[in-house]
Amino acid sequence: MLRETVRGWHAQGQRVAVVPTMGALHGGHLSLVHEARARASRVIVTLFVNPKQFNNPADLAAYPRTEQADAARLQGQGADILYVPDGDTMYPPGFATSVSVEGLSDGLCGAARPGHFTGMATVVTKLFTQTAADIALFGEKDFQQLRIVQRLARDLDLPIDVIGCTTVREPDGLALSSRNARLSPTARQQAPALYAALQTAAAAIERGEAVQVALNAAASTILASGYDSIDYLELRAADDLAPLAAATRPARLLVAAWLNGVRLIDNVPVHAESPNLDGVISMTSPT
Amino acid sequence: MLRETVRGWHAQGQRVAVVPTMGALHGGHLSLVHEARARASRVIVTLFVNPKQFNNPADLAAYPRTEQADAARLQGQGADILYVPDGDTMYPPGFATSVSVEGLSDGLCGAARPGHFTGMATVVTKLFTQTAADIALFGEKDFQQLRIVQRLARDLDLPIDVIGCTTVREPDGLALSSRNARLSPTARQQAPALYAALQTAAAAIERGEAVQVALNAAASTILASGYDSIDYLELRAADDLAPLAAATRPARLLVAAWLNGVRLIDNVPVHAESPNLDGVISMTSPT
Repeated sequence: MLRETVRGWHAQGQRVAVVPTMGALHGGHLSLVHEARARASRVIVTLFVNPKQFNNPADLAAYPRTEQADAARLQGQGADILYVPDGDTMYPPGFATSVSVEGLSDGLCGAARPGHFTGMATVVTKLFTQTAADIALFGEKDFQQLRIVQRLARDLDLPIDVIGCTTVREPDGLALSSRNARLSPTARQQAPALYAALQTAAAAIERGEAVQVALNAAASTILASGYDSIDYLELRAADDLAPLAAATRPARLLVAAWLNGVRLIDNVPVHAESPNLDGVISMTSPT
Repeated sequence: MLRETVRGWHAQGQRVAVVPTMGALHGGHLSLVHEARARASRVIVTLFVNPKQFNNPADLAAYPRTEQADAARLQGQGADILYVPDGDTMYPPGFATSVSVEGLSDGLCGAARPGHFTGMATVVTKLFTQTAADIALFGEKDFQQLRIVQRLARDLDLPIDVIGCTTVREPDGLALSSRNARLSPTARQQAPALYAALQTAAAAIERGEAVQVALNAAASTILASGYDSIDYLELRAADDLAPLAAATRPARLLVAAWLNGVRLIDNVPVHAESPNLDGVISMTSPT
């Protein structure tokens, strides 16, 4: 029983990390496992393709299931346990509970995928309580997901630290994703334009260009590069994901776009504009 | 810090119970504390008047706040800690998470009090994770609440046993409630008719009387006894609160009614009808 094992680890003073995944493990997941290993003495990788976070049955059916390959892939990477709960363990008969995070779940991926974040938040809450881990690692690629999970952990007083890790990319900049394998060779060549456009726009905004101008240019570039449509391309506050008209505080530029029938997402940080020096106030010491 | 204290208790192998309350402690709460004491070595009583479970601001404002008296009342009753979190501890800035239980929260008190059970489920989840208790005790008087809490604890894999305790009553049968103090002397005399009517109806159903006939008679009695109106009076399955047209499985008869401007609730068990013997089948041993 997982909880007994973790109780034993805790009794020995060991810190336990969890890396929740839906399988189809790639280098991004492995980097989370390595980071987990660096921060904890024990690492649990969970693998559960959560039906409740797929609003689209076709998307769920198309989701790759490669459990044997995933287990092989984890060999020697530093994970102690690969935890693969079955559907009845996660959703026993009569299951009726859901965890929702308001505000953070609205817009961005929440707009295109109704119910997705409630399904995700519910299953992540369960994985946190099932594993009793002390820290959890999530990739920044799913930035909205990361913020939702951090919020719910704090709000529900779950005794776990949720840590975001830098997105791992192909040499050409494309963010690693299990969906990349569904791209045709041509589309795979076009795909990195998404990240390139984000970088260009972020740099422009940091230089003081108007946000809407930078976003319009990025959208044009993305569509000209072969993408079929853009679900969203928005500047949001990095902490609470509030929509921003200007980078007045640390921000994130986030995008979701369709290429070759595949929905890809990505995001980059945008540093806050340095305020201009408005004037100089001279002070003498108080008398 | 509460969690450190509980961690110390757990390290010594002690079992920890929690009794969540909204204060205004009466004999019903004290009986939960006594039961907790009998089942665990440590007992935490929580006191938090949860704004999120009041759909009506007037009801929240009218809710008695008697923290000093509550603390005095708990002396010598077997509680180790009275935990009184403030609003910011329960709902820090940016709080956005809610826990909902579908189905069980529909109807009965859920119909008259929109949002009540989500507010309750959210705060109870937090109290469970904050206290890290091994068992929790709830009165059967709030029967729908008890079933919702049991369901969410199981569904979210919270490592806590949720135990329902028999409703404590005045000698005349009225279920103990902080709301009873708001009844006029006359209304207080009339109030026990609610429980009496439930008992009569439950006995009639167990004898085989048609459920609707028994409920109609109970409703007439309640209204004739001085109650102004009935929010609901229903037979439900004892486990999943499914509406029942007949007591074909263990059931519960539940009521909410208004008396003298005060909403009172109560419920009683209804045992399943014994099936009638339809005939006799004689068997010889198989050859």
